[in-house]
Amino acid sequence: MRATIITIGDEILIGQIVDTNSASISRKLNAIGITIGEKISIADSRDAIVTTVERATKESQVVIITGGLGPTKDDITKTTLAEMFGSKLRYDQAEGEHIRQLLARRGIAFTELNRSQALVPECCTVLHNAYGTAPGMWFDTPQRGVVVSLPGVPFEMEHLMDDVVVPRLAEHFDLRSIVHRTLITRGIAESILAERIAAWEDALPEYMHLAYLPAPNIVRLRLSAYDVDKAEATKAIECEFNKLSAIIGDNIVGYEGESIEHLIHQRLSERGLTLAVAESCTGGAIASKFTAMAGASQYFLAGVVSYSNESKRDILGVRMADIEQYGAVSEEVARQMAEGVRRITGSDYALATTGIAGPGGGSEAKPIGTVWMALATPMATYAQMRNSGNDRGQVISRATAYALDMLYDELKKLF
Amino acid sequence: MRATIITIGDEILIGQIVDTNSASISRKLNAIGITIGEKISIADSRDAIVTTVERATKESQVVIITGGLGPTKDDITKTTLAEMFGSKLRYDQAEGEHIRQLLARRGIAFTELNRSQALVPECCTVLHNAYGTAPGMWFDTPQRGVVVSLPGVPFEMEHLMDDVVVPRLAEHFDLRSIVHRTLITRGIAESILAERIAAWEDALPEYMHLAYLPAPNIVRLRLSAYDVDKAEATKAIECEFNKLSAIIGDNIVGYEGESIEHLIHQRLSERGLTLAVAESCTGGAIASKFTAMAGASQYFLAGVVSYSNESKRDILGVRMADIEQYGAVSEEVARQMAEGVRRITGSDYALATTGIAGPGGGSEAKPIGTVWMALATPMATYAQMRNSGNDRGQVISRATAYALDMLYDELKKLF
Repeated sequence: MRATIITIGDEILIGQIVDTNSASISRKLNAIGITIGEKISIADSRDAIVTTVERATKESQVVIITGGLGPTKDDITKTTLAEMFGSKLRYDQAEGEHIRQLLARRGIAFTELNRSQALVPECCTVLHNAYGTAPGMWFDTPQRGVVVSLPGVPFEMEHLMDDVVVPRLAEHFDLRSIVHRTLITRGIAESILAERIAAWEDALPEYMHLAYLPAPNIVRLRLSAYDVDKAEATKAIECEFNKLSAIIGDNIVGYEGESIEHLIHQRLSERGLTLAVAESCTGGAIASKFTAMAGASQYFLAGVVSYSNESKRDILGVRMADIEQYGAVSEEVARQMAEGVRRITGSDYALATTGIAGPGGGSEAKPIGTVWMALATPMATYAQMRNSGNDRGQVISRATAYALDMLYDELKKLF
Repeated sequence: MRATIITIGDEILIGQIVDTNSASISRKLNAIGITIGEKISIADSRDAIVTTVERATKESQVVIITGGLGPTKDDITKTTLAEMFGSKLRYDQAEGEHIRQLLARRGIAFTELNRSQALVPECCTVLHNAYGTAPGMWFDTPQRGVVVSLPGVPFEMEHLMDDVVVPRLAEHFDLRSIVHRTLITRGIAESILAERIAAWEDALPEYMHLAYLPAPNIVRLRLSAYDVDKAEATKAIECEFNKLSAIIGDNIVGYEGESIEHLIHQRLSERGLTLAVAESCTGGAIASKFTAMAGASQYFLAGVVSYSNESKRDILGVRMADIEQYGAVSEEVARQMAEGVRRITGSDYALATTGIAGPGGGSEAKPIGTVWMALATPMATYAQMRNSGNDRGQVISRATAYALDMLYDELKKLF
């Protein structure tokens, strides 16, 4: 079963927004066994919509469209689809009432423009959008197969997909499964990894596809199987990854979905251990990673973003004399930051970062990207320096990753 | 001048990664006057690549392709393009040497797989990738126009686009300009806004296109003009937005690129005023927003992510009796957090948040999404409660936005 995803909107084509909808829809369709053949983004233009939808319906049994359903003049998806399907628009009483109530709750008047959002093509099945004012539409004709039109607002699209479209598709078609499983390796370059596992790769069953996904310090290996029995394929993939761990066991971090912060989260929670962080150059990025996960309050006690020298001294107890002698970006200061936040919070572990994120502040001795990291534990305090690139955003995200690595390596000793 | 962007990779079609490359390429092409007709994502499949590239070259004068240039077996873009252009692969000595040196610096052995990355189609111009091991390729034939193939690693693609591809395109074609300018409004619903500015919209010059881009509490209005003289069109758009500010002046925040945090950043820097934050439910997200901006150290003194009750007491001086009486999510505690971090850092302004991000911790009286925010200023401390949704990520980002709003409204009084 093949699907095409079409996202409509000038804002996508000019790069004003990144299209995240199509990735989300892909995952949801893959989960019920539907393969995505192509994703296309086009402008809010009648001709582009007609040409692209016609072509997509020839190539795929299912076409999912998002965007262009707003109340303003630049949104033309609905009228164009009605025209393509030779259908008039009718006023849907129930949707109209829903829109009126939704706006009333927000204290917004119901205008002619809102009323127009309840107009739907006569030939479609209306998909109720409980979270917004633009209903979804489901067309199903022998010539074109299933064509679904959804609002472009990610939150509304997500709910419509989960609550309405996915269940309908699963019922409508007799689908087999797609299985993806991704193993995360670190500390080994893609080309070296490929050579080391070449024999294993060559011996994989025909129906399994291997992909390499490199990222800084990490290569992810994905095995995919299409149009299979889910339980069997999952077991077979598991078995292949087990063989792999005999070859490159030391480099394996875990499976995807198990990011380093997730693994730390799990291990701290299981052991009842606690964490605090003191950040300078990462500026709250480490704290954010943990606090974004539900249940973080079990182990995450506090973070201090000690940006100024005075805050390093006053909140964390870093000695000003050491800041002056060694500089704020130094092993000494990193150690005192980690020990300081560990002391004031009483946490088991404490991470600290201090570095030069740029674009200003670099010098010959300490160029942009110089980051000192420290980890204070119940036993000792460790520190290391890592150069983390030369772009501000990159320095922040790399330093965050390196600091998490330090903590993860330490926690591995416990298990 | 029309371009098609093709991103290649199974990981895009299964939704394992979000394609950010195509948005970035769009912005860079728009900036030199090239319009994007379509963006397409396809699998690492020979047939898909051949069919899609052939179609794209018929519809556009420029085709930009990313992805599929890695050293492993799943990457087939290069061999497929060589086949399409009827060209053999040759070993490029200079690229080979560059790859060898790049790997040596990282302490990685130069293998047969790396050597294969220096193989390039005879008929293309090699685009040197200073930041990675996969060179870009520039094909230019009378039948197909310009076809450019770039690595999918965002960082490498960005540098190749900026340093090599964009200058070459600008030289190769005689291009006019595209101008986009986006005004941010807040506090007015899209449908109401559309009615209030209907007369202005109807009177816009033919060649200007208006788009509405709604987001929570915000509607962005974009005016675009294609194939124009840059200076003239910029002036004309400016003039239209000036007319608009006479109609909805109170709702206008500023132009895009001027996010609320940017405006706060500017105003604090200009006035030499300082800021500190104390975050509970936002968990470092507010600190991160400021510290991500170059120059934040001028005014951002410190942040405290006081997640545990003890850290609220020990670091910020919140009274434990008040936490017990009113709860950690309360006006009292928000006020004491803001005043506490202002006191210990000596900042002019201090923001605080405390709320229930979920999924646990909600109650009838204080459901998930309840967030108390406080702003301590040299004159007084203000507090407000805002319900910020029911999804953890949403609560964090909305509460962050609402807190920034409070500070921004306060700073407006100074100007």
